[in-house]
Amino acid sequence: MERLPGFRDFYPEPLPNQDVWSADVRNHIFETWRAVARCYGFREYDGPPLEPLELYIAKSGEEIVGQLYNFTDKGDRAVALRPEMTPTLARMVAAHERNYKKPIKWFAIPQLFRYERQQKGRLREHFQLNADIFGESDPAADAELLALLIDTLRAFKLTADDFVVRLSSRNAWQEFFNQRCSDPAKAYDFYQIIDKLEREDPAQSGAKLTALGFSLDDVRAFIQAAEPTAELALILANLVARGLSDFVKVDYNVIRGLAYYTGPVFEAFDKKGEFRAIAGGGRYDNLVKQVTGGKVNLPGLGFGMGDVVLTELLKARGKLKIQVVGLYYDIFWLIEDESLRLESLAYIQQLRDSGRAVDYPLTGVKSDKQFKRALEIKARVMFKLARTGTGLVFSVRNLIAKEERETTDFEEACKIAEAWLSSLS
Amino acid sequence: MERLPGFRDFYPEPLPNQDVWSADVRNHIFETWRAVARCYGFREYDGPPLEPLELYIAKSGEEIVGQLYNFTDKGDRAVALRPEMTPTLARMVAAHERNYKKPIKWFAIPQLFRYERQQKGRLREHFQLNADIFGESDPAADAELLALLIDTLRAFKLTADDFVVRLSSRNAWQEFFNQRCSDPAKAYDFYQIIDKLEREDPAQSGAKLTALGFSLDDVRAFIQAAEPTAELALILANLVARGLSDFVKVDYNVIRGLAYYTGPVFEAFDKKGEFRAIAGGGRYDNLVKQVTGGKVNLPGLGFGMGDVVLTELLKARGKLKIQVVGLYYDIFWLIEDESLRLESLAYIQQLRDSGRAVDYPLTGVKSDKQFKRALEIKARVMFKLARTGTGLVFSVRNLIAKEERETTDFEEACKIAEAWLSSLS
Repeated sequence: MERLPGFRDFYPEPLPNQDVWSADVRNHIFETWRAVARCYGFREYDGPPLEPLELYIAKSGEEIVGQLYNFTDKGDRAVALRPEMTPTLARMVAAHERNYKKPIKWFAIPQLFRYERQQKGRLREHFQLNADIFGESDPAADAELLALLIDTLRAFKLTADDFVVRLSSRNAWQEFFNQRCSDPAKAYDFYQIIDKLEREDPAQSGAKLTALGFSLDDVRAFIQAAEPTAELALILANLVARGLSDFVKVDYNVIRGLAYYTGPVFEAFDKKGEFRAIAGGGRYDNLVKQVTGGKVNLPGLGFGMGDVVLTELLKARGKLKIQVVGLYYDIFWLIEDESLRLESLAYIQQLRDSGRAVDYPLTGVKSDKQFKRALEIKARVMFKLARTGTGLVFSVRNLIAKEERETTDFEEACKIAEAWLSSLS
Repeated sequence: MERLPGFRDFYPEPLPNQDVWSADVRNHIFETWRAVARCYGFREYDGPPLEPLELYIAKSGEEIVGQLYNFTDKGDRAVALRPEMTPTLARMVAAHERNYKKPIKWFAIPQLFRYERQQKGRLREHFQLNADIFGESDPAADAELLALLIDTLRAFKLTADDFVVRLSSRNAWQEFFNQRCSDPAKAYDFYQIIDKLEREDPAQSGAKLTALGFSLDDVRAFIQAAEPTAELALILANLVARGLSDFVKVDYNVIRGLAYYTGPVFEAFDKKGEFRAIAGGGRYDNLVKQVTGGKVNLPGLGFGMGDVVLTELLKARGKLKIQVVGLYYDIFWLIEDESLRLESLAYIQQLRDSGRAVDYPLTGVKSDKQFKRALEIKARVMFKLARTGTGLVFSVRNLIAKEERETTDFEEACKIAEAWLSSLS
């Protein structure tokens, strides 16, 4: 039986000649995300993977339904597997925001789902780092969020040669629009054209713009000038102070398709332009108000960074050298004398109680096969228990330095092993 | 807008006067699960949360469908949110078992879903530690798995006064059945009666047993004797050797409802009997064969431990004292002189680059309010940058020992802070 198209299995390490996905790689990415978020004082949260369909329609309109994994549950509720985290977050923050000092800085690592028309190799689920700030309208918050985004990518050893954050402004585009058009109803369509500008045939974009009363040349000149707004200038100065200015540039090609952004918006791209956006986000000062029907009003901003593009990029740039395979045991316990199996188990238990990862043969196996196993699993220390004329003796072997010591005292054997293991780690 | 009934929000820390669920508690549980699994050399994997419905029907029969979150997707596929991990695991292992030396020891922490008739407070999702071993039919593997289960609960500081693993045997019951009945078609019904014996009215159980040709007294005498099979005796001796025998007792009341168990089966319970089972599992030597239509034949065994009962038990026994709230910052950087904000950001960046969690005021705030914030977030060290007649001076304050030092050298300031932070951690 096969898994569903667009879903991934995560074997412990990547399978030979298969996709790069694995639990080891995923854990490496999640742990790095968590470590950097922690440095920035973001606190982890999570919500349900299944939500009322209405939550997404309220935020994005009916057209979102075509892209969702949605269905009617056995209680006749219209529900959907979450396609994004922000609506859940807005709901959670709005419900209990009084419990929290502002700014609220939170992150999550949800699995998200989209049912789009099937494209070759296109996934229907991915994991995403979501980092958001609520309750601060000053551009200092935008700079803090951008610094987190940049430092997250830097933590994977990506440099300014590998990626750039393209920073733009909904306000700048709004002003551009207002100066040339007095009908606010046309704004959404105008933003959609700008959003597609880099991917669409210029003739087509030009025609659409003309139909709305704009000109492609005018739009291009505005993008070309890339004149930062006062708000963007503050954000840039803040990032310069942090030494992060190499990672960001003003680029008005970015506008973000979603309707709810209100201020600075941004997207991170690989510099070679081989991949889709690595991350994207911006300010959404009206979203909480919208989701709560006006009951709670909190400025907000955030970004999402998916695991799929990131993993592909790290692999392509040779930054995915995870040395975890085989490194999950510290100690191999060799059982040469089956009559000592039960005694051996008592000592193995003690080693595991001390936090060490210990392997041993579950059943009787020849010593040379056991030794081979110890090397295969890259154990760094091997224990063996043997009977002598006078009693029991432990031999402890450093499998890296190929050094062996014997003692009749288990505590001493443990000290020898611990000294080796800590010097080898 | 409310979340769906039976689903949980995970705020960073537990909300006052609400459920115990929180991301902090969940992370504590997941990290403990991972740490113990690692000591036993179990490797993490994961699979899709959505699978073909057929996968579950193949294993558990059509009756399972009534308990599932199942629906038809936009590609007309019958799918279900996973109610358990074992079918996915069996599929994954069967597909690539040749890549792995036996025994295969794997674990996962999936979120699982059941749509049961709504009961007050009953959840429709939970997380579960799943640990399984494939490719070893010796009872030594059952003992290894039970030791992992016991040590996982011990890692939460639960003792033999708090819980017990009730160990039973499908083989023992099979033999009991065969000695008294020659119609194998009745075995499943018989097991269902035994499974309900402790919860059901004895008169009803007795009537059902009589109808099948058994007697309640006979069944009770068998349970009362609790005579371990040769297999169980080996497992018990193995656990005695590890010093874990206090945590386990033979108890033939346990039989496990699911059809696919074949050998030893077990369930862990709190000793006061206040909660549902903490964990349960057993041997299922035919499952891989069944799921692969006979293509792959691998003995297997495993257990599941849910986060809900475990969290409730830990809370009830006072073992859930997680001191993470407020401990997510190491350093607070106080900005007294707004003209030094950008310089301060440069130094904050360096502290974060070194892996420290640093908070600072995003906008201009009075110093006494900032100091209050530093104490609230339980920062252990506070930095401040000030202008003197000759240049800049850093003051570093140990907020625990209430000691302050000044230096014009940032590197020296960092050394002072690091010494304090490591002595305070």
